[in-house]
Amino acid sequence: MNAPVPLILTGDRPTGPLHLGHYIGSLKNRVAYQHEYRQFIMLADSQALTDNMDNPAKIHNNLLEVAFDYLAVGIDPAKTTIFVQSQVPELAELAFYYLNLVTVARLERNPTVKEEIRLRNFERDIPAGFLTYPVSQAADITAFKATLVPVGEDQIPMIEQTNEIVRRFNRTYNCETLVEARALVPEVGRLPGLDGRAKMSKSLGNALNLGASEQEISKAVKKIYTDPQHLRIEDPGHLEGNVAFIWLDAFDDDRAALEEMKAHYVRGGLADSKVKARLEACLQELLAPIRARREEFARDPAEVMRILQRGTEAAREVAARTMAEVKAVLGLNYF
Amino acid sequence: MNAPVPLILTGDRPTGPLHLGHYIGSLKNRVAYQHEYRQFIMLADSQALTDNMDNPAKIHNNLLEVAFDYLAVGIDPAKTTIFVQSQVPELAELAFYYLNLVTVARLERNPTVKEEIRLRNFERDIPAGFLTYPVSQAADITAFKATLVPVGEDQIPMIEQTNEIVRRFNRTYNCETLVEARALVPEVGRLPGLDGRAKMSKSLGNALNLGASEQEISKAVKKIYTDPQHLRIEDPGHLEGNVAFIWLDAFDDDRAALEEMKAHYVRGGLADSKVKARLEACLQELLAPIRARREEFARDPAEVMRILQRGTEAAREVAARTMAEVKAVLGLNYF
Repeated sequence: MNAPVPLILTGDRPTGPLHLGHYIGSLKNRVAYQHEYRQFIMLADSQALTDNMDNPAKIHNNLLEVAFDYLAVGIDPAKTTIFVQSQVPELAELAFYYLNLVTVARLERNPTVKEEIRLRNFERDIPAGFLTYPVSQAADITAFKATLVPVGEDQIPMIEQTNEIVRRFNRTYNCETLVEARALVPEVGRLPGLDGRAKMSKSLGNALNLGASEQEISKAVKKIYTDPQHLRIEDPGHLEGNVAFIWLDAFDDDRAALEEMKAHYVRGGLADSKVKARLEACLQELLAPIRARREEFARDPAEVMRILQRGTEAAREVAARTMAEVKAVLGLNYF
Repeated sequence: MNAPVPLILTGDRPTGPLHLGHYIGSLKNRVAYQHEYRQFIMLADSQALTDNMDNPAKIHNNLLEVAFDYLAVGIDPAKTTIFVQSQVPELAELAFYYLNLVTVARLERNPTVKEEIRLRNFERDIPAGFLTYPVSQAADITAFKATLVPVGEDQIPMIEQTNEIVRRFNRTYNCETLVEARALVPEVGRLPGLDGRAKMSKSLGNALNLGASEQEISKAVKKIYTDPQHLRIEDPGHLEGNVAFIWLDAFDDDRAALEEMKAHYVRGGLADSKVKARLEACLQELLAPIRARREEFARDPAEVMRILQRGTEAAREVAARTMAEVKAVLGLNYF
């Protein structure tokens, strides 16, 4: 018997258009994965509501923006199933049953949730839906019987929580209905923000969106953080923490030329403006076709919505099958 | 404009056949309500799972038992919609969104949940589904836009929790989609158990089931708790805490004869056996037709299942309509 094709579940909260950090951290990999694996990408609108319940418009206004980004970078709906979480109600239903398999104390110990609660200053006013969102993620992952879930290091506890539920379910009901998943941690680390901060984020104002115009790219590169001690051209420059070079590492394919440039910079005698010009050229080259495709899709939002609808229908079939299996195991299949 | 017909949502966790306590506390009222109100009765199998996840068979094995009891006492599926909670997935979906509208701290303060947690010795190992079940109840109530919910005094905090969610939702989204409910607390108090304990319950072994045989009724009445100080017939007897008389109050329609009997008992000279004989006669008369109808339904479980299926389809239509309205308010109606 051949091993089944690994199945990936991944996705994004649609809270804003995607940026270069997403491209390096996940989108680029997804374009590659779709040739090797069965891949489901979820627009996690319901999950985004757990901390945006007062402003749901933010979510639905950004749904298509993220979809445009997916399609623009080359995620192919013929190879990858792109779907909308809220339109697969089986995911909420499955989460509802899983809530009985996890204790409150266990959820409160989840390091990812603890950190997210801290970041959001929730303190005692944690919405129940926020505390329980790892259970919702477990439902998303197991509904598709995903075996691989691409996540950053900080999200590994979420996969552990999922697998605990899987094991508890299969053991309690003496079945093999649910499937454990493995975290797929990308080799490439996180892309720092323009300002040198570790995390690129729209809300920090240090991101460069995938749909950025030529001028926006140019403007962004001009203000990119380099080496604050590199005051005169002839001074030796430093590479550590130098965002211009970190980004070049990520985007410049001509490794030999880049290594030469780095040596020159460290030695002294290379102006920041030269480094930035090279980076800008790389980014303009990378983003021009993405922007063009993005604009093309954005001209026909109805067609993109149809792509999402078709993906959602396909995803729903899979999730409904798992839900029916779970209900059969629980004996909740009366009719 | 005429006021709309009040709508009742009520139900039971199907963890065992129903008993006289259910009859007095709720079933008898439901038979009356169905002529005045629109009434939905829910077989709360999903809710029963919140503390029976290790033994789901207990739930599905008792689903039909409870349905037989409903039909036997005269709940008429042509007037009352009887449905199965787990087969209306919109209820779980709605609960999933409501989780974002309630804080963990608020759930932990719920007095009913606190008491139930104490009773079950959960301590720190509270299943998340148990802590959040008031949210699930809010979903059940609001999905049908129920305006009246028959509950005991101890369940009033659950209705308050529901109404908090309703107000928060309607206020946040500036809409009138959800409807507040009012607790309908029955005038007749709780029927004590055979052994004199305040609560009649199968697990305490002090219940008399609605489907009890003639002999079971006879045996139960023989061991019913009366007045432990009434040792000799000629002694004066006491009525307080005397279960035989409390039950007669509940089941004997000949009030004049009953008052005469009470006076005789208090005065002295009336044997417990006489009181019990009168009670047994009442109970045999009450339960004989219920038992006969119950046996009739039990001979055709497939037909009863069809009744539940039809009720569930009707209930699902209503719940799906509310769910669609809620999703539209949240902007989650893309396709």
